[in-house]
Amino acid sequence: MSRERFETFKKALRQRQPDMTVLTDKVHKAQNISAILRTAEAAGIGHIHMVRPERGHLVYHNTAGGIGRFTSQTVHDTIEEGCSALRQQGFTLYAAHWSERAIDYREADFTRPFALIMGAEKRGLSDYAAAEADAHLTIPNMGLVESYNVSVAAAIILQTAMEQRVRAGLYERPLEEDDHYWTTLFEWMHP
Amino acid sequence: MSRERFETFKKALRQRQPDMTVLTDKVHKAQNISAILRTAEAAGIGHIHMVRPERGHLVYHNTAGGIGRFTSQTVHDTIEEGCSALRQQGFTLYAAHWSERAIDYREADFTRPFALIMGAEKRGLSDYAAAEADAHLTIPNMGLVESYNVSVAAAIILQTAMEQRVRAGLYERPLEEDDHYWTTLFEWMHP
Ligand SMILES: C[S@@+](CC[C@H](N)C(=O)[O-])C[C@H]1O[C@@H](n2cnc3c(N)ncnc32)[C@H](O)[C@@H]1O
Ligand SMILES: C[S@@+](CC[C@H](N)C(=O)[O-])C[C@H]1O[C@@H](n2cnc3c(N)ncnc32)[C@H](O)[C@@H]1O
Repeated sequence: MSRERFETFKKALRQRQPDMTVLTDKVHKAQNISAILRTAEAAGIGHIHMVRPERGHLVYHNTAGGIGRFTSQTVHDTIEEGCSALRQQGFTLYAAHWSERAIDYREADFTRPFALIMGAEKRGLSDYAAAEADAHLTIPNMGLVESYNVSVAAAIILQTAMEQRVRAGLYERPLEEDDHYWTTLFEWMHP
Repeated sequence: MSRERFETFKKALRQRQPDMTVLTDKVHKAQNISAILRTAEAAGIGHIHMVRPERGHLVYHNTAGGIGRFTSQTVHDTIEEGCSALRQQGFTLYAAHWSERAIDYREADFTRPFALIMGAEKRGLSDYAAAEADAHLTIPNMGLVESYNVSVAAAIILQTAMEQRVRAGLYERPLEEDDHYWTTLFEWMHP
C-alpha cells in the first residue's frame, strides 16, 4: 500500500454520495450490470440496489473491472421490496421511463437524495415501479431509435446528476471520520 | 406506411449530422457495438466506421434493436485505413483516451466536422490512433474506476456533442432534398 494509493482511497471515500443510488428493476445482462456499477461508482455511488431477475442470478463480479470490491449491493427479491426500502431511507424515486407524465431528465433535481430506477433490457420498467416513482425521466433524442441501452441511459442521467452535484459543492462536503469511514478504508486497503 | 411514420422519417433525416461520426478501434463485443450504434443514431449519426477486430467478425445486426436498418457502416481492415478515410473526408479526429495531452471532453468543439474514435474493450485505443488523433478527450470521474464501459464513454461524449449542436442550431439546417435524401427516404419506407 503506497501513500499515493491511500490518498486516492481517502479522496474517493470523501467524495462518496450516500444520498444518491441506483435501483435496477430486473436488469439481467451481466455486461449491463457491470457497466452500471462502474458508471455509478464513477459518480460517487458506493452502494446500489438491484431487483433479482426472474431467471438466473446476478453474475457481475468478474466483469465489473474489479470495481465490485469498492462498492456494495443490496439484492431485493421484488420491486415492491426495493422501492419500500429506498422510501424508508428517504430517497426520492426517479424512474428512467417514457410516459405521459415524463419530464426531460435535465429538469430533475439531482441534488436531493434520490434513487434512479432503471428498467430491464427488453421489458422495460415494471408497472409497479412506474406507479410508485415520484417522477419519470426521459432522454429525448434526435433520431429514430426508441430507446437507449439501459447502461447508456443510466450513464447519461448520472452524468447530469454528477454535474449538478459538482455545481452544488456536494463532492466537497466536510469529511466525517466516523466508524463507517475507517471500516471502509480498512477494507479497501486489505483485499 | 402511415402519414405519421413518413413525417417521423422526414424529421429524422433532416436532423441527420453527416459531419459527425464514430470510428470504433477494434471494439468487438456485439452488445457494445449495438449500444454505440443506437446512441450514435440517437444523436443524428447515420453512418459509422468500424475497424474489424482481430478475431471474429462484427455481429451486431440482430442486437441493435432494429436500428441497423436506419444506419450504414463502413468496416475498415486497419486503423490506418479508417483514419485516412476520415481525414480525406475532412473530419477532425477526436480520440476518447486518457493521456498526458488529454483534455476534458467538455472543452472540445463538437460543432466542427469530427469523428470520435473509441478504443477496444480490454486493449483500449491503438498506438496509431492515439498518435494520429488531433486531440485526446478524457471523462473525469469522482470515484475509483479507471475507465467506463466503451459504449457508456461514447454516450457521455456524444450527449455533450449533441447538446453543443442543439445550441448551435445544427439540427435545424435547411433540408436539401437531393438524391441522397430521396434514396434514403425510399429505403426506409420499403423494408
Ligand atoms: C432498453 S430500455 C427498455 C425498452 C423497452 N422496450 C421499453 O419500451 O421500455 C431499458 C431501460 O433503459 C432506460 N431507457 C432507455 N432509453 C431511455 C430513454 N430515452 N429515456 C429514459 N429511459 C430510457 C429505461 O429505464 C428502460 O426501461
Ligand atoms: C474499457 S475502455 C479501455 C480500457 C483500457 N484498459 C485502457 O486503459 O485504455 C474502452 C474505451 O472506452 C473509452 N473510455 C473509457 N473510459 C474513458 C474515460 N474516462 N475517458 C475517455 N475515454 C474513455 C476509451 O476510448 C477506451 O479506449
